[in-house]
Amino acid sequence: MEEKQLLMIPGPTPVPPSVLLAGAKPMINHRGPEFAALLAEATVGLKRIFKTEHEVFILTGSGTGGLEAAIVNTLSPGDLALSVSIGVFGDRFASIAKAFGVRVETLDFAWGAGADPGRIRERLAADSGKQIKAVLITQNETSTGAANDLAAIGPVVREHGALLLVDGISSLLAMDCQMDAWGLDVVVAGSQKAFMIPPGLCFVGVSDRAWAAMEQATIPRFYWDFRAAKDYLERGQTPWTPAVPQVFQLVEAIRILEREGLEACFARHARLARAVRAGVQALGLELFAQPRHASNAVTSVRAPKGVAVADLRKLLRTKYGVVLAGGQGRIKDDIFRIGHLGYVSESDIIATLGALGLALRELGFEADSSAGAAAAIAALRG
Amino acid sequence: MEEKQLLMIPGPTPVPPSVLLAGAKPMINHRGPEFAALLAEATVGLKRIFKTEHEVFILTGSGTGGLEAAIVNTLSPGDLALSVSIGVFGDRFASIAKAFGVRVETLDFAWGAGADPGRIRERLAADSGKQIKAVLITQNETSTGAANDLAAIGPVVREHGALLLVDGISSLLAMDCQMDAWGLDVVVAGSQKAFMIPPGLCFVGVSDRAWAAMEQATIPRFYWDFRAAKDYLERGQTPWTPAVPQVFQLVEAIRILEREGLEACFARHARLARAVRAGVQALGLELFAQPRHASNAVTSVRAPKGVAVADLRKLLRTKYGVVLAGGQGRIKDDIFRIGHLGYVSESDIIATLGALGLALRELGFEADSSAGAAAAIAALRG
Repeated sequence: MEEKQLLMIPGPTPVPPSVLLAGAKPMINHRGPEFAALLAEATVGLKRIFKTEHEVFILTGSGTGGLEAAIVNTLSPGDLALSVSIGVFGDRFASIAKAFGVRVETLDFAWGAGADPGRIRERLAADSGKQIKAVLITQNETSTGAANDLAAIGPVVREHGALLLVDGISSLLAMDCQMDAWGLDVVVAGSQKAFMIPPGLCFVGVSDRAWAAMEQATIPRFYWDFRAAKDYLERGQTPWTPAVPQVFQLVEAIRILEREGLEACFARHARLARAVRAGVQALGLELFAQPRHASNAVTSVRAPKGVAVADLRKLLRTKYGVVLAGGQGRIKDDIFRIGHLGYVSESDIIATLGALGLALRELGFEADSSAGAAAAIAALRG
Repeated sequence: MEEKQLLMIPGPTPVPPSVLLAGAKPMINHRGPEFAALLAEATVGLKRIFKTEHEVFILTGSGTGGLEAAIVNTLSPGDLALSVSIGVFGDRFASIAKAFGVRVETLDFAWGAGADPGRIRERLAADSGKQIKAVLITQNETSTGAANDLAAIGPVVREHGALLLVDGISSLLAMDCQMDAWGLDVVVAGSQKAFMIPPGLCFVGVSDRAWAAMEQATIPRFYWDFRAAKDYLERGQTPWTPAVPQVFQLVEAIRILEREGLEACFARHARLARAVRAGVQALGLELFAQPRHASNAVTSVRAPKGVAVADLRKLLRTKYGVVLAGGQGRIKDDIFRIGHLGYVSESDIIATLGALGLALRELGFEADSSAGAAAAIAALRG
């Protein structure tokens, strides 16, 4: 049944019914008291999620817009940034910096792996002249299904003194992100990931160190200017008209998340991710990401032998209503990806692996159709 | 009754129930076939609304983001732009250009008036060396309730050869905007105005001349880059994850608008605007905008003698559920504004003027409480 979809991609993710309906409320004045109350509640919730005492701004735009905001607010043309990349989104962060005149040195790691904190420390230790102004890194690399260990990398960067700018677009809430404790200076999250709300907003945490850097930063900026965001937030507003429905939805989603609890939310993501990995392997498929770097938000799977990823995805979508993602960048046709972040339950995981088993079999791949679902169930049983 | 609101501000505007519900549909893959079909339908509809054969892009962001896009895609640092401003939003357009290193010469007109095409012609005629690369102008100045005559100004600018960049954020659909016939090079519209959908998207029409200028333009850009928008549009996608609910809503709103018809939509806005002006004056209040420049989207009214605008707005909101806007910029406390664009009906106008009459009386302003509604009704009768 094509109409009923199980949306198992790494964003947009499924939205809870109460959150969908919160977005359908009549519009209000974005410069009036009702909006100010919502913005205040949302901001408090975001600070708890980011684990920060610093500012968190709600900006209208995609995650990429949030990354642009991180760059243009803290750096100047000619500044040197160290891009620590493990995939397409790490590379994109570097491309944004380059577009604004930042000199970018790349420290790339194999796709499917996480960055090695030791090699980052080595490179930063060699920078005795402190030329490196910022380190750019993704927490969860959506394109490969590998995650970086920011608990280890944060202190390494802080030791050097560079700013640490983090693409946390698909990681926040799917895994722990301790902005203050780990020394992260700018953290960007996206609404359409584990926040369980539709795309349209990004959330940006800004440390005091980033704020100080901003005073010196000369890349031109207007729409993304954090100073405007802060100035208006103090009045209960955003500088430019915000995506009001998504702000309604953010407030509702935060209420749901607080009922679950942050640590329980991380644990759920870890549990579902383990079940997906077990199920995929039981079907005779190979995981792309290295096990110890495997993401709790998305699982990348190598293309089954003899089956085109496009055919597999199409059959899953049209016959079973299960929507998976393909690969991106240079591994576009080599992998497919299962998103399991946000409003995703145990049942969704079991259903996805069941449909995957059926579709693989139908496309001539030798597998026990029920083995994936069975292995997932076993993993969930714990 | 505070809960039931009549939202009479110049954006966000009221949203039709079917449009609200269209936004509450479950999420879909923004890189899948369902989204491509929606994007194609929306783009065709937008081109009809912009009256253009050129590209119209859907960008996720506020109208201010669209203005930033207009600047960063077409100009270079050091370029000279002529800012034709009649209020806060004209000034903002100039501020954005300045933020990106454009030299801005201002040609300001009295707030409440429209720009004089003759004076624009004079200034451009004096620019024999063709130093002026672009003219920046608003079609509808939301802060004053005055509109510019782009049918007259477009050809004047084309004669000189500068690009004409238009802030049409609050004008599109509330008044005619003939992008191709009038020679407008970039036109920016906002979703939360007469399009009758919530904020979150802006729409940007780009002429061939703007496209050619873009090849030379060197202001750094990434998120707002029209080249990325065009590249992805050809594949049925947006470069970055879009505000999917607002795209669902745009498609539904365009269907409603096409049933009404573009010319009927303009006529409705003109008719409602006349009724508002008649009603306000019948209450003994004074219009701020000059009659021949009065906007069909928003009406500005001078503060009633002896009544603080803030008190009037608060009483209207809390007792009568009618939400009006205050002033902006240097006329913040001197006027209030009634928005009458988008999903606004004859009844809404009558109700607003009735409530205004009651509130004025209650605040000690000598007026016949029913005179406003009566005059509006008479005007609507034609």
